[in-house]
Amino acid sequence: MTNTQVTLIQLDNYGPWTVTPEPRREVDLQTMQSRLYADLSQLFGNRDGYVFFSRFDNMIAVTNGLDVDDHALIQESIGNRYPVTTSLSIAVDPAPIAALGTATDQLQAAGSAQDKDRRSILRGDPLDEAERTDDDLHIAHFDVNDATGQYTDELNEFDTFISIEQGYAELMRYMREAHDSLSFFVGGDNVIAVCAGLSADDYRDAITHVREAVDVELKVGVGKAATAHGAGMDAKHALEACRHDGHDIVIDD
Amino acid sequence: MTNTQVTLIQLDNYGPWTVTPEPRREVDLQTMQSRLYADLSQLFGNRDGYVFFSRFDNMIAVTNGLDVDDHALIQESIGNRYPVTTSLSIAVDPAPIAALGTATDQLQAAGSAQDKDRRSILRGDPLDEAERTDDDLHIAHFDVNDATGQYTDELNEFDTFISIEQGYAELMRYMREAHDSLSFFVGGDNVIAVCAGLSADDYRDAITHVREAVDVELKVGVGKAATAHGAGMDAKHALEACRHDGHDIVIDD
Amino acid sequence: MTNTQVTLIQLDNYGPWTVTPEPRREVDLQTMQSRLYADLSQLFGNRDGYVFFSRFDNMIAVTNGLDVDDHALIQESIGNRYPVTTSLSIAVDPAPIAALGTATDQLQAAGSAQDKDRRSILRGDPLDEAERTDDDLHIAHFDVNDATGQYTDELNEFDTFISIEQGYAELMRYMREAHDSLSFFVGGDNVIAVCAGLSADDYRDAITHVREAVDVELKVGVGKAATAHGAGMDAKHALEACRHDGHDIVIDD
Amino acid sequence: MTNTQVTLIQLDNYGPWTVTPEPRREVDLQTMQSRLYADLSQLFGNRDGYVFFSRFDNMIAVTNGLDVDDHALIQESIGNRYPVTTSLSIAVDPAPIAALGTATDQLQAAGSAQDKDRRSILRGDPLDEAERTDDDLHIAHFDVNDATGQYTDELNEFDTFISIEQGYAELMRYMREAHDSLSFFVGGDNVIAVCAGLSADDYRDAITHVREAVDVELKVGVGKAATAHGAGMDAKHALEACRHDGHDIVIDD
Repeated sequence: MTNTQVTLIQLDNYGPWTVTPEPRREVDLQTMQSRLYADLSQLFGNRDGYVFFSRFDNMIAVTNGLDVDDHALIQESIGNRYPVTTSLSIAVDPAPIAALGTATDQLQAAGSAQDKDRRSILRGDPLDEAERTDDDLHIAHFDVNDATGQYTDELNEFDTFISIEQGYAELMRYMREAHDSLSFFVGGDNVIAVCAGLSADDYRDAITHVREAVDVELKVGVGKAATAHGAGMDAKHALEACRHDGHDIVIDD
Repeated sequence: MTNTQVTLIQLDNYGPWTVTPEPRREVDLQTMQSRLYADLSQLFGNRDGYVFFSRFDNMIAVTNGLDVDDHALIQESIGNRYPVTTSLSIAVDPAPIAALGTATDQLQAAGSAQDKDRRSILRGDPLDEAERTDDDLHIAHFDVNDATGQYTDELNEFDTFISIEQGYAELMRYMREAHDSLSFFVGGDNVIAVCAGLSADDYRDAITHVREAVDVELKVGVGKAATAHGAGMDAKHALEACRHDGHDIVIDD
Repeated sequence: MTNTQVTLIQLDNYGPWTVTPEPRREVDLQTMQSRLYADLSQLFGNRDGYVFFSRFDNMIAVTNGLDVDDHALIQESIGNRYPVTTSLSIAVDPAPIAALGTATDQLQAAGSAQDKDRRSILRGDPLDEAERTDDDLHIAHFDVNDATGQYTDELNEFDTFISIEQGYAELMRYMREAHDSLSFFVGGDNVIAVCAGLSADDYRDAITHVREAVDVELKVGVGKAATAHGAGMDAKHALEACRHDGHDIVIDD
Repeated sequence: MTNTQVTLIQLDNYGPWTVTPEPRREVDLQTMQSRLYADLSQLFGNRDGYVFFSRFDNMIAVTNGLDVDDHALIQESIGNRYPVTTSLSIAVDPAPIAALGTATDQLQAAGSAQDKDRRSILRGDPLDEAERTDDDLHIAHFDVNDATGQYTDELNEFDTFISIEQGYAELMRYMREAHDSLSFFVGGDNVIAVCAGLSADDYRDAITHVREAVDVELKVGVGKAATAHGAGMDAKHALEACRHDGHDIVIDD
């Protein structure tokens, strides 16, 4: 059984900040957001966690192995280096979507995302060290079959982007609704999903659904470990095995 | 009439690099990609251009006002600071989608995105300085009505993300197919579109389409100028006017 | 005759910020400072200026070719992305040290570096475009003869560092006192000096002085141009010519 | 007794890279160097180590608490994100200068800093976990008395810089020769020293020496702990106590 620790990261009162006193230059906002994400990726990643940029003002991290002190240090380090602050909310559940639900509830209970006085919240309880197992996290790494040959080298780049995006939009929704899992586009033709304990048939079901719904052909490698990095690296190797052997699904057990 | 100069930015042979000799740590790839985007955002932005991250390994820039030397300098600067190189292809057309089509064709003609020997290509012709006008670029800045109150402060963050994402997926496809325009998610609940010369009715049509298709309520501010920054900043002010006055569409003429 | 435009960049009220409310983590201060410098280096560098980190809380830029609007944009961009603000003061003089003197006076007249209410000052007058010439800037690029063979590959790294540092300390003081020039360590065994109009004999005098005072052997390439980048790149090529031909001084005229 | 673990970080074959095939733009080198340092500062700092930029192509870290795997991960992460690679050499000794001596010897034995085939070396033995104590590291944080009032707000910024720099040059040399300690300028008017086990009289001796030699007045706070961050933060608080109480030396025991 999986046991996923999720951290919701929310920039405090960010929307109003972007237009106060006047709208700020878009290129500066883009630079600031993407660097903040890059730094969080290193700060969590150095402790074997993963962060996904999702909406940039709300980011979602998988943080098995990080305790409250680790979170406090990350929060402090960002606060020391950026013009904005962050609130963090931690929760654990076998189902990733449920963990994020609890994390979201905890943060909403502390105040609105646009409450000027709600700053640098740190809430929630990490997974007890004694309860951690090598099977806590299941990470699935999807990519599009022959994306370069079928799309990038053939179509208008925006039509390629639309195809990848429609495949992602369908996968993210289906994996959430049918399988309680959280899927994130990570660039190129790649999607990484943090999954509940799914079978090979479940993964096949998702791939089939996306093909039938939007005609995008996916394959997937799956890894399992105590940390996001461990499971994610196994998933990458499993995906390489897919490429090498022509399989659609490889699960590293 | 619009006259959009688009630059396609492609990381050279990037997919193979990410798994050679072994798959690289995902957090490092995420950090490298998002910082590369942040730097491009500054490099183009310092010359009043915009860059959108789209797939991160293929990025799309709006570059009216930048000549070939500017592009060469940007390409050199990235090459001096990153472990990967970039290829750039420039094209101009009244319709943004057509400009990107030409830019894509030029790059595809130079070789595959995964050709090891195709590196640091720089192709295409910028808009002649003498032909530039204050009406060349139309930028539309969309956001979701009351996203914080309706979504962020209410739903599981992943369900908020799904709603925003479905709204974006629908908008990007419709704006491309019906209106020859390129739309990009830029974080939060914001989408920025580089548009052909559209009327208020065209914008209303797009907003209506998204509401009917996926039940996401958008509003939009539109700006026009000789550069992406100029048009984009006017669009931000127009969107502020929407918020203030309760309108769905404000076009700054 | 040279005509050097210098900009003094001062972080506003920075010392107190680093210890308020408690001393901040040193690694975060180091990260923030060095990234702020890196960004300034790009922001000025994109307009063919140079920035030197000097004390990090006070940095010195050579900005021929940048007008007040360019400075305002740089100041705004940093303010959008960092937790601290900057004040900028611009001045022009044939002698670099005199230009910096005027720039310093202007900023001191606006208030103390630790005045909480003195923020985002922008003072001073750039060189008029009509007065600019291809000879305005003289940049000298010094390095230590065979630093790798004599120091890096032979000594304890701290003793190497001490030798380079003593050479730099002597050069910076002598070039300022005898030749009205500003010299900056830029890493490795390299020093870049922004010079008044000096002769080959003047450069020889400086090299001789450093050798006699602290037994460090330097060579130097000199370039002249309308911008820091132009003069600096010529200086690099001149230094390569020194290496190739075994000369101590090469001036690119 | 102190037990200092030092890591020498050397960019591989960096000098030749900066001029191949042509000299690279100085602003890009400055950006790349300072960001690489910023990243190392975070990577080591997240594990409670300190890094000093020293010459940028050779950096010196204090790494008590980091094992070989930590170093390997840092080396890999940099290699994934920069166009240059790093070699690392670890050594331990009661005297910081001796630890760095051993670390330097190990790296020199592996080949020249400009050997094209010597890349990504990782050598040396960290301090055994069982031997670590709360007294292993002594960190001294020096600053200049009333630097803002005496220098920054009064003198030409370059003359301020010269004064600070001469004070640093004298302190670094004296602390190395008389006290086996490593001192680093860290910006503003601050110097951080990694010290052998020194007494209050030793610190007084160093301060007196600098005042007599170059007329710069220093004060110092000293902290002791098992990690650089722990000792460094205690030193900062001790320095605040100096400021508050008007003392020249405060040692936190």
